[in-house]
Amino acid sequence: MADTIHTVSFDVRDYECDLQGIVNNANYQHYFEHARHLFLRSQGVEFADLAARGANLVVIRVEIDYLFPLRSMDTFNVASTLDRVSRVRIACRQSITRADGRAIANAVVVIATMDASGRPCRLPAEVEAILTRLAP
Amino acid sequence: MADTIHTVSFDVRDYECDLQGIVNNANYQHYFEHARHLFLRSQGVEFADLAARGANLVVIRVEIDYLFPLRSMDTFNVASTLDRVSRVRIACRQSITRADGRAIANAVVVIATMDASGRPCRLPAEVEAILTRLAP
Amino acid sequence: MADTIHTVSFDVRDYECDLQGIVNNANYQHYFEHARHLFLRSQGVEFADLAARGANLVVIRVEIDYLFPLRSMDTFNVASTLDRVSRVRIACRQSITRADGRAIANAVVVIATMDASGRPCRLPAEVEAILTRLAP
Amino acid sequence: MADTIHTVSFDVRDYECDLQGIVNNANYQHYFEHARHLFLRSQGVEFADLAARGANLVVIRVEIDYLFPLRSMDTFNVASTLDRVSRVRIACRQSITRADGRAIANAVVVIATMDASGRPCRLPAEVEAILTRLAP
Repeated sequence: MADTIHTVSFDVRDYECDLQGIVNNANYQHYFEHARHLFLRSQGVEFADLAARGANLVVIRVEIDYLFPLRSMDTFNVASTLDRVSRVRIACRQSITRADGRAIANAVVVIATMDASGRPCRLPAEVEAILTRLAP
Repeated sequence: MADTIHTVSFDVRDYECDLQGIVNNANYQHYFEHARHLFLRSQGVEFADLAARGANLVVIRVEIDYLFPLRSMDTFNVASTLDRVSRVRIACRQSITRADGRAIANAVVVIATMDASGRPCRLPAEVEAILTRLAP
Repeated sequence: MADTIHTVSFDVRDYECDLQGIVNNANYQHYFEHARHLFLRSQGVEFADLAARGANLVVIRVEIDYLFPLRSMDTFNVASTLDRVSRVRIACRQSITRADGRAIANAVVVIATMDASGRPCRLPAEVEAILTRLAP
Repeated sequence: MADTIHTVSFDVRDYECDLQGIVNNANYQHYFEHARHLFLRSQGVEFADLAARGANLVVIRVEIDYLFPLRSMDTFNVASTLDRVSRVRIACRQSITRADGRAIANAVVVIATMDASGRPCRLPAEVEAILTRLAP
């Protein structure tokens, strides 16, 4: 993974666990999404503002490798960074690590910018600014 | 419960079950909400239309009695009916019954109509029409 | 509400909001449940341990009053306390308050102890101990 | 996609939609999971039975391409089929299509069989039997 530039800590909540006694697979997308929104916000990117200007950040592909399951009472960190994929796409690379260092899951989330009518458009300036800060 | 006027059938989905092997309490609110929306739609009431006219249906109180837990593979029915509580409030009475007749849960959901600024306003005509059909 | 004896802070996560731009009603049950589990744990009560000894804490009734909606980016506190209802039942009284002091929601959650076969049984000693500490 | 051998129909439920007015990305994993469980059950494979015999089916990788968003009131189909990846892994290929034929999402879900201690083990006979029926 590229240099991590944002990390946030979470606790497993019991309602996130399923019949098998482990966190349900879909909830990892919730963790990754919330961490991504906090990451972008920390870099000055607000979804609501972008949307109001007609530039929506839209997830177009998700890949998740599940290495080891999270359980009730686990505490874990979600680390995130950002790469450019093309003029209209970025990839958010994210990983989950349990508090004791155990690797839990890795994800690549590909995001496109689309205008109000759903057509791809150029990345907004705030997002370009993050990419420049990360890989000048 | 007053006369049931709408019934819909659901299957438990495994991701709705939690650590204890039973459907998590919060998911019953999801079942009740979805059944309520289908019920109102069947009576000609569309949330989106109401909201566009500045009359939002807002849940202000929920009471749920949990009688017996649902489990993986259970099929069940949600029955719904509607009462007037006041000029600006209605109560949706709902119950969940397992396919074999076992009583699972009962709910009373109190709903108010609010205008765009969040102030209570009179019930929309479509909702008054349902109440009149039910208790002429 | 009786004296609050446990408070925990949460952030709204965007995936918890629905079409209306506010936190979906069912998610308040998730907040209350997670706060309740943290509260009981802080008092030395572990669900897993109780269950292993054949004494399950089971929610049998929930009442929630929704006073004002939570939105994206809100931070809020969940306060919890505990009362005895009968020899086999307790009530957890909980409230949500936005970080700026705005009252958001109140809940009463009635909990019974049941043995492995689903029959009511006496409250476990750990739970009795909490009640004694709270109302000696 | 290989020949589809199982299809199931769903309705979008309003609580599955988020702030943007579309179904939240994580909920597609719920749809795929529920369709997969129904598919396997239709082929005679029961998770509970397998687990009781010490052979857990565990998702180790998910890839989802999001082509077009689902919205409130949409009806859609989830189609599923199964391929062998190795002696201990299978891939479930799934797709979501809106009732009017619009392609919504595609997924590849890689599943391994693990014994009670979490070590990879051979595919159970029921799963081998499905693969043989599909590609004799």
